[in-house]
Amino acid sequence: MPAISEIFVHPCGLCESEAVGLGTRIWAFAHVMQGAVIGSDCNIGDHAFIESGARIGNRVTIKNQVMIWDGVEIDDEVFVGPGACFTNDRFPRSPRMSLPAVVSRYSDKREWLLQTRVETGASLGAYCVILPAITIGAYAMIAAGAVVTRDVAANTLVAGVPARRVGWVCRCGVQTSSHNLPKRCSRCDEVLD
Amino acid sequence: MPAISEIFVHPCGLCESEAVGLGTRIWAFAHVMQGAVIGSDCNIGDHAFIESGARIGNRVTIKNQVMIWDGVEIDDEVFVGPGACFTNDRFPRSPRMSLPAVVSRYSDKREWLLQTRVETGASLGAYCVILPAITIGAYAMIAAGAVVTRDVAANTLVAGVPARRVGWVCRCGVQTSSHNLPKRCSRCDEVLD
Amino acid sequence: MPAISEIFVHPCGLCESEAVGLGTRIWAFAHVMQGAVIGSDCNIGDHAFIESGARIGNRVTIKNQVMIWDGVEIDDEVFVGPGACFTNDRFPRSPRMSLPAVVSRYSDKREWLLQTRVETGASLGAYCVILPAITIGAYAMIAAGAVVTRDVAANTLVAGVPARRVGWVCRCGVQTSSHNLPKRCSRCDEVLD
Repeated sequence: MPAISEIFVHPCGLCESEAVGLGTRIWAFAHVMQGAVIGSDCNIGDHAFIESGARIGNRVTIKNQVMIWDGVEIDDEVFVGPGACFTNDRFPRSPRMSLPAVVSRYSDKREWLLQTRVETGASLGAYCVILPAITIGAYAMIAAGAVVTRDVAANTLVAGVPARRVGWVCRCGVQTSSHNLPKRCSRCDEVLD
Repeated sequence: MPAISEIFVHPCGLCESEAVGLGTRIWAFAHVMQGAVIGSDCNIGDHAFIESGARIGNRVTIKNQVMIWDGVEIDDEVFVGPGACFTNDRFPRSPRMSLPAVVSRYSDKREWLLQTRVETGASLGAYCVILPAITIGAYAMIAAGAVVTRDVAANTLVAGVPARRVGWVCRCGVQTSSHNLPKRCSRCDEVLD
Repeated sequence: MPAISEIFVHPCGLCESEAVGLGTRIWAFAHVMQGAVIGSDCNIGDHAFIESGARIGNRVTIKNQVMIWDGVEIDDEVFVGPGACFTNDRFPRSPRMSLPAVVSRYSDKREWLLQTRVETGASLGAYCVILPAITIGAYAMIAAGAVVTRDVAANTLVAGVPARRVGWVCRCGVQTSSHNLPKRCSRCDEVLD
């Protein structure tokens, strides 16, 4: 898909950020908050939500209903499947709770906000959930419905609740269920290592 | 619910398709794209998304936040529960990726787009995910949160990640956990076979 | 977060209820239906949906895309994480189905509508699903992606599909994986019992 030279926001979409790159398209009922940073040539699907503080690279595909919060950084060329969701708080309580220990915790973002990173070219399947303080390595693939509770190494395929390694993935997306990383991709002949 | 003779689109909903049957209602923040085909007397809940190329029968209930993509065909009288999600690509990568093998794959829909079918009267539970190239048989029931990775036979109840058969379902919705299909439904007395 | 003295509805949000307490904020593309009851100082995130008949207490946090149906009651100071979903029908079929046993069932709400309750201060993780007719005890915590199929006791941490008890939680949110409820919270020193 060739880069186009403008930012497109659907008439029913809402973009409050001034830090969106050229060629990026934001679709109906999606909401990009002020302070979110999005690169160029991205696609942000219907009903997606990008919070202030989130950072997204170039040529990223954000499918419908994806939620990306403050504390999440997404590198170039990542695919975030429909409804995939990040998290940034390990001990969530209603910040409106009157309990002093909770009031105190939510009074300072450094007390509760955890960082998550998705590295170049990774793919996150439909409705996967990424727990806080996780790194997902380059070209890794998260199966649909997986709940990711720890770091995922590059080129790894993980699935299940909680997510476990079930195979390997080439940069081109082809998967193998072999225990050891194969030497070459069966489809694109790329050398893996 | 009696058929009504018009198409209703909520003032906050968005319907771009001209192929929607009479009596169908489309609710707030839902989006039906041009080229989607929807039968008569359906109900499309808030925040649902129906993509160009999707085909939906008559008297279908699509609850809130459901996502139905190109390649998905849904027969008459199906129930698609809240947030249920289909998929149509087995090796998803960002189509904006610069890798030649990926650019080539997404340049032709026949290279990556897989078909899914849901047969008459089936029910899909809340937030279930249907992997691509699946057929869900008539009156089958998918439990909430299930991830469906292979075909589901008619009148079968499946649950879990990945989804496994856990019982049988009558057309009327009554479930049994018995290993063998019972001869008659305990509620509506229908003969099963 | 101090109480503010007005109800805020984002210009892209939709609030049809007249029973919303002061200080409550309703964000973009959220929809609160007429007949939903919401207390004071709540926060209702983008794309959330609150159906007629739902009841929500005070100082509740409802994150984005949460769906709360008729039959669901949520007590004060609960946290409902992103995309968490309730259900209220155990044998869902399309209410538009022509089968007489189904037509009859959906002709009377008392035939199919089940009640769910979430007690004070509980937390529901991202994309958890709560099956119908469940009670979630005070200060319990539901892990992200869990599918809750039976009642959850107060101060219990549950996870998985189906959800099982995996530990205990203090009112302040701190979790422990110990089998027995510890005597005191390691963080806030609260006496548990």
